[in-house]
Amino acid sequence: MISSRYFENNSYARRGMILESDLNETNKYYLTNNIALIYKKPTPIKVVKVEFPKNVIKEAYFSEPSTLDYNGIYKEKYIEFDAKETTSKTSYPISNIHHHQLTHIKKVIEYGGIAFLIVRFTTINKTFFLNGNDLINYINENKRKSIPLSFFEEKGYLIEMKYTPRLDYIKIVDNIIKEKRKVIKYGKKETC
Amino acid sequence: MISSRYFENNSYARRGMILESDLNETNKYYLTNNIALIYKKPTPIKVVKVEFPKNVIKEAYFSEPSTLDYNGIYKEKYIEFDAKETTSKTSYPISNIHHHQLTHIKKVIEYGGIAFLIVRFTTINKTFFLNGNDLINYINENKRKSIPLSFFEEKGYLIEMKYTPRLDYIKIVDNIIKEKRKVIKYGKKETC
Repeated sequence: MISSRYFENNSYARRGMILESDLNETNKYYLTNNIALIYKKPTPIKVVKVEFPKNVIKEAYFSEPSTLDYNGIYKEKYIEFDAKETTSKTSYPISNIHHHQLTHIKKVIEYGGIAFLIVRFTTINKTFFLNGNDLINYINENKRKSIPLSFFEEKGYLIEMKYTPRLDYIKIVDNIIKEKRKVIKYGKKETC
Repeated sequence: MISSRYFENNSYARRGMILESDLNETNKYYLTNNIALIYKKPTPIKVVKVEFPKNVIKEAYFSEPSTLDYNGIYKEKYIEFDAKETTSKTSYPISNIHHHQLTHIKKVIEYGGIAFLIVRFTTINKTFFLNGNDLINYINENKRKSIPLSFFEEKGYLIEMKYTPRLDYIKIVDNIIKEKRKVIKYGKKETC
């Protein structure tokens, strides 16, 4: 069974693409307005068969990403994040974040970059920014298999949907950078 | 005509993969030894047909990258570069660098990141590091269609092949960061 168009018969993947499309539009806005330089990395695909001379790929497989989906630069800072979605109204399942992605988030933070998740609860139509450090702390301190909505409400930041840019997440990154500078200025340990 | 394995009948692409494999090994070394966090982005592929339920890609096409192939973070700095090869003994053809890649290099520099090319002259077996700023200056100041080897020898940095790490390019990035700091310290205009 071959679908004539990718994702045509796959409503789960299509739903995932709405958040992706919101973020791509937002990043395009940041690019055009010289605000930030952030791109979605291409989906990793393992190519097995190629038809020459036109280089048509005839057999290939989706592979798992070992990093996060989006990265780039804002105000000289390295930025990396992933976009995640859940239909749950009450919590986000931790199993949806791959182990190597968690390791990668820790590393980005160690290197002085800013790593985070953008999580959309599609049923209640709320999108949150969750800083990598808060995510790691939650996982270290809790044995639960999911992160409750209340944790996003308490530690995360709600991103309002706007006409343009659709999801203005860079404002939150901006606050994090300012907090980091304050922390450095007053000699405390850097926390994000 | 379908090849049983990707690149089996394609010596040009295979040659290109030697530099890629050298860089992947080097980045792995940096990762394992906590030196830098740099990854090759997946090749952009446009997927047209997917066979369900096993998600086997049955028709797809390679697309042109609008950014550079490798990016990541080193000493809190955003790093982005591309790996290029030529069989010429005397010069590197500028047509091999896509226009949108040049625009992207300029933008990365404007945002305070470090952008560069790693260019291998395969016939004479020499690999150079060319800083993005020097590349842009050359293109702005010259009407030639290629960059002569002498320019790489004068403005670039020769990267010696070693057993491990194979191409220790981060040492050159380190010097660039130190130079940037000196320039900032003495109040001159930042140049890279």
